[in-house]
Amino acid sequence: MSLSKPTITLLISCPDRPGIVATISNFIFEHSGNIVESAQHSTNQQECRFFMRISFKEEGFTLTPTELEAAFTPIAERFYMQWSVAYSRIPKRAGIFVTKLDHCLIDLLWRWKRGELDMDIPFIISNHTLLEPLAQMYDVPFYHFPVAKATRTADEERILEFISGKADFLILARYMQILEPFFVTAYPHAIINIHHSFLPAFVGANPYQRAFERGVKLIGATAHYVTDNLDEGPIIAQDVIRCDHRDSTEDLVRKGSDVERRVLTDAVRFHTENRVLVYENKTLIFD
Amino acid sequence: MSLSKPTITLLISCPDRPGIVATISNFIFEHSGNIVESAQHSTNQQECRFFMRISFKEEGFTLTPTELEAAFTPIAERFYMQWSVAYSRIPKRAGIFVTKLDHCLIDLLWRWKRGELDMDIPFIISNHTLLEPLAQMYDVPFYHFPVAKATRTADEERILEFISGKADFLILARYMQILEPFFVTAYPHAIINIHHSFLPAFVGANPYQRAFERGVKLIGATAHYVTDNLDEGPIIAQDVIRCDHRDSTEDLVRKGSDVERRVLTDAVRFHTENRVLVYENKTLIFD
Amino acid sequence: MSLSKPTITLLISCPDRPGIVATISNFIFEHSGNIVESAQHSTNQQECRFFMRISFKEEGFTLTPTELEAAFTPIAERFYMQWSVAYSRIPKRAGIFVTKLDHCLIDLLWRWKRGELDMDIPFIISNHTLLEPLAQMYDVPFYHFPVAKATRTADEERILEFISGKADFLILARYMQILEPFFVTAYPHAIINIHHSFLPAFVGANPYQRAFERGVKLIGATAHYVTDNLDEGPIIAQDVIRCDHRDSTEDLVRKGSDVERRVLTDAVRFHTENRVLVYENKTLIFD
Amino acid sequence: MSLSKPTITLLISCPDRPGIVATISNFIFEHSGNIVESAQHSTNQQECRFFMRISFKEEGFTLTPTELEAAFTPIAERFYMQWSVAYSRIPKRAGIFVTKLDHCLIDLLWRWKRGELDMDIPFIISNHTLLEPLAQMYDVPFYHFPVAKATRTADEERILEFISGKADFLILARYMQILEPFFVTAYPHAIINIHHSFLPAFVGANPYQRAFERGVKLIGATAHYVTDNLDEGPIIAQDVIRCDHRDSTEDLVRKGSDVERRVLTDAVRFHTENRVLVYENKTLIFD
Repeated sequence: MSLSKPTITLLISCPDRPGIVATISNFIFEHSGNIVESAQHSTNQQECRFFMRISFKEEGFTLTPTELEAAFTPIAERFYMQWSVAYSRIPKRAGIFVTKLDHCLIDLLWRWKRGELDMDIPFIISNHTLLEPLAQMYDVPFYHFPVAKATRTADEERILEFISGKADFLILARYMQILEPFFVTAYPHAIINIHHSFLPAFVGANPYQRAFERGVKLIGATAHYVTDNLDEGPIIAQDVIRCDHRDSTEDLVRKGSDVERRVLTDAVRFHTENRVLVYENKTLIFD
Repeated sequence: MSLSKPTITLLISCPDRPGIVATISNFIFEHSGNIVESAQHSTNQQECRFFMRISFKEEGFTLTPTELEAAFTPIAERFYMQWSVAYSRIPKRAGIFVTKLDHCLIDLLWRWKRGELDMDIPFIISNHTLLEPLAQMYDVPFYHFPVAKATRTADEERILEFISGKADFLILARYMQILEPFFVTAYPHAIINIHHSFLPAFVGANPYQRAFERGVKLIGATAHYVTDNLDEGPIIAQDVIRCDHRDSTEDLVRKGSDVERRVLTDAVRFHTENRVLVYENKTLIFD
Repeated sequence: MSLSKPTITLLISCPDRPGIVATISNFIFEHSGNIVESAQHSTNQQECRFFMRISFKEEGFTLTPTELEAAFTPIAERFYMQWSVAYSRIPKRAGIFVTKLDHCLIDLLWRWKRGELDMDIPFIISNHTLLEPLAQMYDVPFYHFPVAKATRTADEERILEFISGKADFLILARYMQILEPFFVTAYPHAIINIHHSFLPAFVGANPYQRAFERGVKLIGATAHYVTDNLDEGPIIAQDVIRCDHRDSTEDLVRKGSDVERRVLTDAVRFHTENRVLVYENKTLIFD
Repeated sequence: MSLSKPTITLLISCPDRPGIVATISNFIFEHSGNIVESAQHSTNQQECRFFMRISFKEEGFTLTPTELEAAFTPIAERFYMQWSVAYSRIPKRAGIFVTKLDHCLIDLLWRWKRGELDMDIPFIISNHTLLEPLAQMYDVPFYHFPVAKATRTADEERILEFISGKADFLILARYMQILEPFFVTAYPHAIINIHHSFLPAFVGANPYQRAFERGVKLIGATAHYVTDNLDEGPIIAQDVIRCDHRDSTEDLVRKGSDVERRVLTDAVRFHTENRVLVYENKTLIFD
């Protein structure tokens, strides 16, 4: 899946009709692009909609980014496309938010350092200082932004201002604060949260405790884009692990933390590799 | 797990205190029982409660069922036990309820015939006649009991009367009718239902459609004992299967039906092998 | 995944070079085909090789099968393609071979009857008569062909002659006979076998017994195309299930049979839906 | 699973016969022990053998370790038991061996630090210095012991002497050296190795490369006790992860490293919690 050479990736969504694939692949071919990955999907519902992710080698491709934009725009308009382009040699910048729990952060940093996650990390922000040493170990700038209930709006405004222009997307790696709508609006489909349950089960607080009380036989974790509706944004990745009557709530927390970090890492990888398209509060993952 | 020779199984639940295991194992030893399986659990909560499942060979054991009952009762009273005893040579009698869907029924019948499920099947009851040929193929008596919304109470009373004394527990193998409280009360913790979602997600109707709309990345199934609260009885078994944006609701139904039959079969096996203890609307599975 | 309307599917393999996707999608577009599914893969090894599966609606496509063949051949020659075309309205014909074990056969027949496997079943052949009633239940012609060690070659020649022209591919649903090379040669990459281990572990006889003796913690099953090297053909599908010290060899057989039927069914589905390409004794599965 | 209060755990193996459980539970009860966990297993083979793990609270138990040894020995002799006793308040000492790969080590250290693995780590030994900073970060003594092919015996003798009396068991966390028989003999069933394949598939070198070449659809990892036969010691834990034709050998390495660390951690946890009994080159895991 990791591609050694630089690639250009197009993500496209438009009403379905004949000729889209031919047009796009011709466009790439005419400018000497060599396709390395391609995936598409059409909804089979009333209004058919077409989705595509197509990657081609940057080497040999004859258009500069500006030229590509200019040359592709007429095609996009003809097919009423929503589209975006990404260059693999320009890693996305991921701002990470944490509170006190370290398991998701440590997994992200470790995978990032060994090259599994192709991204930059311009900052780690926390409402506590506990995880600062971990950030330092990986040479990532750490900033402490206290958040209090009474001053939440002002606190978040300060954070929003501080990070302005610094990050392409945000990762809430068990950040135990709810973001205000104005904050969420600033990063549409660009804030990834990990919720420690198999959504839509156990929306909200204390999912492990509630899973224990309900006596479920599997617990899970869900990575999703944050929207204004708590735990109801588009789901990117989910997984579960088996549990039984011998597991206390503390055991569920321990087992679940393994699932959380795995699921969050998957979601971040999909996002950094431009494998996610959002449509009608759901995701298409071209993995 | 299947034990070739007849066994006697005790299921015990009582307040925890020292000496329970010693007392029970002495009791078995004194009457020449040879223990083949044993499992126990203690809750670590405020009031500690002790649970045990212990199986010993019937061959060589010197007490008849009546004598066992008489000899064990004083022990049970001393420790304030809830207890039950089961003889493996007397299979439980499982009454099956179906509507039109065949996947769970076919799996139960096939496993039953090949000896995986140690039970008798005195009857299959359905509010439709579609699955009668399947019952005939396996030589299981099939009875058609129409149920209508307007006459539900009377309809269920007729069924309840008909099955009286014929079954030890009931399996709702995708029986698409809600049972009235008076019916449920007649079989406490003895009606196993399969719900086609990962409870507590998607309680109620059309879980696959709702899973599709929510865009989950896993779908599941849950086998539970029926109580008066819809889909809220003690969970016996659960499992999930992966899905993605390419799956239509019909695909989810197809994938899910595999999980449903696997989960229902597991739950039925646990029940027939006396591996389930219910406590505070949760199950302990001694598998 | 099931597509309600008839589709045409191209499977293509050729040396990688720019322009392949554009050429193919243009070809389809020029003849009014509407692409519904498309997947591709390029090896990143020294000699790059390109693989593609592309499906488009038959409705509206302006070429007859003969015309398609004539029109596409020059393209195929230009790119040195190996290619095949399949029409979804013409189901593949699957000949099934069994011996005495019923679990794989019952699963195939049940899924086939409910429409999960889009194929015809012209015959079931067995070296025993035990499963004839099962074939009759599903109205599939059953033929008894005894096979003996001493007469194996002649026995297989008779079978080969009998099935000539009747089947597009063969399914060995726990057929406990080894096929002679001349037989295998007649169906290249068109005989699907289920082996009851996680290959390459436990090649050959008695894999469950050997898994028990080795003390593995998971057992598996493998569906693969039959070649002249026992259990070494291209793997199509694999899965595993957890086991532990409490499982006897008989328990492994029981647990494993669930995995076998699931894996075999997956492999058959991939094959019938033209999702499999074979290259260098490995498969590419475009699912 | 983690038990908050100190416990004493007995591991027992002996020929099966009536009265063992009663005798042991009486012994514990008579000295005021309160059983918190108990599991047993009997082989159903020709010579029945009985295995048991039983844990009781140290608090209230009236025997000192010396007294327990003296009092239990006659019982053990009567039943021809192999037995051991472990006190949870005395963590086992785990010596870790590594080479250059960090994923298993980082997972062990992280889980150890957060209290998931109840053990002490007296040293990390490596034939390279690359991972010394990681050891320092967790304040674990790190020792560099170069090993060369020509001097292997002398090298290993020096290590063996150095660690003498310092560790109760050893963890080979991707230690890329083969241990000499004299070394293995010094730690019988006390050296845990992680092999990066699903044993017995791909015994020996380069399992990921060979998995890639064979075209398997799942890759795995196996934790086992080291014996003199390479990769043939008793298996403690195994797991797998799905892969497909898009995965290069490098992808398999990446995916597999997640399975390796999970499987190794499980095996270490079982060992530290005295949940493993070895019999006839297989393990019984009382989890």
